Amino acid sequence: MSSTSPSAIALLNIQQDVQTRIDRKLALFIDQQTQTADELITAMKYSVFSGGKRMRPMLLSIVGNMLDANPDDLDVASMSIECIHAYSLIHDDLPAMDDDALRRGKPTNHIQFGEATAILAGDALQTLAFEIVLNHPLSKDNSAKRVDMAKVIAKASGVNGMCAGQSIDLLATGNEISLAELTELHQLKTGALLSACVSLGAILAPSIPIEHIQLLQKYASKIGLAFQVQDDILDVISDSETLGKPQGSDTDLNKNTFVSHLGLEGSQSFLQMLHNEALQAIASLPYNTDQLKAFTDFLVSREY
Amino acid sequence: MSSTSPSAIALLNIQQDVQTRIDRKLALFIDQQTQTADELITAMKYSVFSGGKRMRPMLLSIVGNMLDANPDDLDVASMSIECIHAYSLIHDDLPAMDDDALRRGKPTNHIQFGEATAILAGDALQTLAFEIVLNHPLSKDNSAKRVDMAKVIAKASGVNGMCAGQSIDLLATGNEISLAELTELHQLKTGALLSACVSLGAILAPSIPIEHIQLLQKYASKIGLAFQVQDDILDVISDSETLGKPQGSDTDLNKNTFVSHLGLEGSQSFLQMLHNEALQAIASLPYNTDQLKAFTDFLVSREY
Repeated sequence: MSSTSPSAIALLNIQQDVQTRIDRKLALFIDQQTQTADELITAMKYSVFSGGKRMRPMLLSIVGNMLDANPDDLDVASMSIECIHAYSLIHDDLPAMDDDALRRGKPTNHIQFGEATAILAGDALQTLAFEIVLNHPLSKDNSAKRVDMAKVIAKASGVNGMCAGQSIDLLATGNEISLAELTELHQLKTGALLSACVSLGAILAPSIPIEHIQLLQKYASKIGLAFQVQDDILDVISDSETLGKPQGSDTDLNKNTFVSHLGLEGSQSFLQMLHNEALQAIASLPYNTDQLKAFTDFLVSREY
Repeated sequence: MSSTSPSAIALLNIQQDVQTRIDRKLALFIDQQTQTADELITAMKYSVFSGGKRMRPMLLSIVGNMLDANPDDLDVASMSIECIHAYSLIHDDLPAMDDDALRRGKPTNHIQFGEATAILAGDALQTLAFEIVLNHPLSKDNSAKRVDMAKVIAKASGVNGMCAGQSIDLLATGNEISLAELTELHQLKTGALLSACVSLGAILAPSIPIEHIQLLQKYASKIGLAFQVQDDILDVISDSETLGKPQGSDTDLNKNTFVSHLGLEGSQSFLQMLHNEALQAIASLPYNTDQLKAFTDFLVSREY
């Protein structure tokens, strides 16, 4: 995809729009909370508003719009997902975990606020994710949809998803694991939350046939993995400034990566395969998938 | 209250019953989760089943039964609260927080499993708390009740409750704070979750007049504080073996406590006052409050 193609420009506009809306609405929601614990709120905001690319909200928004969901409702789901994402980054960066000092070119949360506050900021952001889907106004108040959204977010985050992936990742660091195990690990650690975005878009849409949801889930699982493969490739070929964190940090930590398993060229081929499989999964869907295709291209060709 | 009075014996029976049921149902629910991350699940179970007194489920169960709620539904709420409670203890014990090596006479989670797994076990237990109220079967499936329960749990746990209290506590450690600030801190840190138990009992009951709920909330706020005052007293007068953690650990950490503010006798008078106010709050309720009164007496006279 050339960076000046019409679909690339349209996608940049979507990213800009999503980012602006999510930032504004999240700030509003956080400011409505009891402001007794200033330091905690400051630490939470620091990570939520640290210039993240809002990839997950983009995906959620694109899928939801394609399925004709209410855009404001989609933003509610996106806000929640971004709180989960921010919490996971804060905890992953802790000294006991990946011990990262930089994230997106800025000091990580525990470097800025100390470990105790960073742990608490992560904890409170997880809770906030649930408060958002449970409390934030929706276009039509609907308890059943709130329950469905919260279920999807919980399943993707906890012992059936992200936390399980992170736990397996920790145990695998420094040990050789198989490619199948590495794939499963990332399906849980990164893939689960991306899949959740697709599910949330579908939950908020008017009734969608189950076979369409299954195709979208298949798509999500492919791009979830593609996202991680591209991450591993970037860790090797990109410079630290572009990455916003030290280049080669995975190698330094003796982490299992797709590059360590498949080599650089092998990883690039694998990425290409996942890209094709993702596009194939959505090829037969009777919706306008142009934006979703453009997003897929963007995801695998991103440089940061 | 003599320890052999009929109400004390009835209360011990309730505690035994609640503990047995909650332990069994929680084990069942956890075992139904995807078991990919063995180490994580083991660490979660270690803290959830560490012989906790299940005070919060007792309160929830007593209030809910008094208001004629379905006992199995009450257990669902209790299971969720116990996951939040266990997660908060794991994170509070971390080296960056209170740095405790012992809890209930056993090594704390991070001593047993390492810091990274302890952080994740806490994270995943918070998620599990939401999974329980969102997914566990209820006597009548009711999305609105699930949303109400999850809202109460989220509000009590996050930046409007427990996390805020812990954050203020961390900042106050080593600094002099006023008695009013100390009280507010504990209303958030301990009181919010005890109040949540009362709210959850009321949510699961047939419709209860708002003024009764307000009286129960007032009661909860008094016993929440009384619970903490008694904790501070026990930290000074009890021995380490009874406490299951080093006696005097609050003093060692240079923590603000009710004893450091009011002295031992002053704290005992304050406890007596809160005890009376709690009983007064429920005096006019048109329900059978015998068990709730016995629970209140037990709470302020407990020795561990």
